[in-house]
Amino acid sequence: MSTSRLTPRKPGSLHPPLVAVDWGTSSLRGALLDADGRVREEKSAPRGILMVEAGGFPAVFDQLFGTWMQTAGTRCLISGMAGSTQGWVEAPYCACPAGPAEVAADIIPVAPRIAMVPGLSADDDGVPDVMRGEEVQIFGAVALTGIRDGLFVLPGTHNKWVRVADGRIAGFRTFMTGEFYALLGTHSILSRTIDTAAPLDEAAFRQGIARSRNGHGLLHNAFGARTLALFDRMKTGPLASYLSGVLIGEELRAQALGPDTSVVLIGAPQLTQRYALALQAEGVESRTLGAEATWAGLHALHSQHNPQ
Amino acid sequence: MSTSRLTPRKPGSLHPPLVAVDWGTSSLRGALLDADGRVREEKSAPRGILMVEAGGFPAVFDQLFGTWMQTAGTRCLISGMAGSTQGWVEAPYCACPAGPAEVAADIIPVAPRIAMVPGLSADDDGVPDVMRGEEVQIFGAVALTGIRDGLFVLPGTHNKWVRVADGRIAGFRTFMTGEFYALLGTHSILSRTIDTAAPLDEAAFRQGIARSRNGHGLLHNAFGARTLALFDRMKTGPLASYLSGVLIGEELRAQALGPDTSVVLIGAPQLTQRYALALQAEGVESRTLGAEATWAGLHALHSQHNPQ
Repeated sequence: MSTSRLTPRKPGSLHPPLVAVDWGTSSLRGALLDADGRVREEKSAPRGILMVEAGGFPAVFDQLFGTWMQTAGTRCLISGMAGSTQGWVEAPYCACPAGPAEVAADIIPVAPRIAMVPGLSADDDGVPDVMRGEEVQIFGAVALTGIRDGLFVLPGTHNKWVRVADGRIAGFRTFMTGEFYALLGTHSILSRTIDTAAPLDEAAFRQGIARSRNGHGLLHNAFGARTLALFDRMKTGPLASYLSGVLIGEELRAQALGPDTSVVLIGAPQLTQRYALALQAEGVESRTLGAEATWAGLHALHSQHNPQ
Repeated sequence: MSTSRLTPRKPGSLHPPLVAVDWGTSSLRGALLDADGRVREEKSAPRGILMVEAGGFPAVFDQLFGTWMQTAGTRCLISGMAGSTQGWVEAPYCACPAGPAEVAADIIPVAPRIAMVPGLSADDDGVPDVMRGEEVQIFGAVALTGIRDGLFVLPGTHNKWVRVADGRIAGFRTFMTGEFYALLGTHSILSRTIDTAAPLDEAAFRQGIARSRNGHGLLHNAFGARTLALFDRMKTGPLASYLSGVLIGEELRAQALGPDTSVVLIGAPQLTQRYALALQAEGVESRTLGAEATWAGLHALHSQHNPQ
């Protein structure tokens, strides 16, 4: 252990360093945050929970973050699917509405100095909805932007549309848009004539969004990606963007959007870019955050969880 | 050749016998119709066009229908995907609106005494739509029911919703409901917790239909089949029916249905049953036809194609 690591914390640092970990289905990412939440170092590995064998979580954790944890007083907070039944330790869902205080109160211990953030559940007219990890990103986005009321959108395999009121998560809905796009692009009849690896074609994407407005629904409009190819009206690259526009347009149809809606997009640029374009086509402006939201969120929860 | 086959046709029989063939993507079915359109014999084989190698169509045809064709004067009409670019001989689409006369005029020869019925194309605000084979079933249903105006629905992998006016096809739209159900049940996250082989659970199916009315769309409502399993609120069998209800309900949302809408369902009982239930839940009555519609349709086209 190096001497520098034993240096007393500087005045104003209320908390020891934090190892912030986002452990998802397909990837594992972590950041070493200083007492003020600044990122000192980041690490990632293709070791999502599906790539970890039963009982293998402690070893994977040690391998990636062991050296960070050696510093005296360091604590770790993990969010994401590592807290599911298939994960390291199950952290039962915290019910909506919930802010950082409620979520922090439900954090559960995993190992000495390591704790797990619970996911959130919502009730949608008798049908449950769930998230794991996104709640942390939202709390981080609230902290980073100062926006305490609005719509927060997290595109991914299962997109989350989250209503935030006074800095707390009031409710949310999941949309399987990312998974539908992958299914259609890989396993459906459309897969023969679309190239999902092609770069975004903005014109075709906008055509797809426009198409989604016709009231005939996704089950019909998706078939257009087949017939446009059949009649040689669109090539395989633009067709993928067209289908993406049809899907994201359909997703937007289900939201109560107005020109005054404040939307914060959180996620990977290649996805948030599409949602920003789609929202713009509806006259809705948005702002975008990336991975920094996760670290800010875990820092915020750590402050609530471990007050000193 | 048996003597009985050489018996002169009885008075009133205006046409020679017809071998009516429905050659689809995954199956091949045929019926021997007498001069009045009555079914004398039926045959089928798992030799849809995907199971026939290039150049192999004549041999497959001979093997199944050769003996029927030996009778003097017998002709054959084929409908379905055998007329597509991947089929035996391509029969270019006939444009909507079209009745039996227009479709019969576009029938093309395949081999001596064998001809191919074209599919139909429609224009839906600049995006094409297509069918192959369903047009024949609709003409048959019109002939069998006497209903010359109404909505004709053909459930399948790619469902067709067809507007018929004065016995002609005015327009139609395809819905990928069957393919979406298969994709979600086989390849999506839902596949882990639903059993698509389970028999229809009517209560769960109706719950799914009711769910589809909430305005949040398929991309959201499909996820309910995941969370209901996660919270152990529904078992794998009913969940499949629930998802089916969500999908078919979504499809119905896209139609202009009223209590006065006359709906004719054409297809396999296990599918038409679900649509009849779903329509009933919307206050719309329907009647149902099966394979007989295909034979009646090919008989009707044959009369137009080969007047004597």
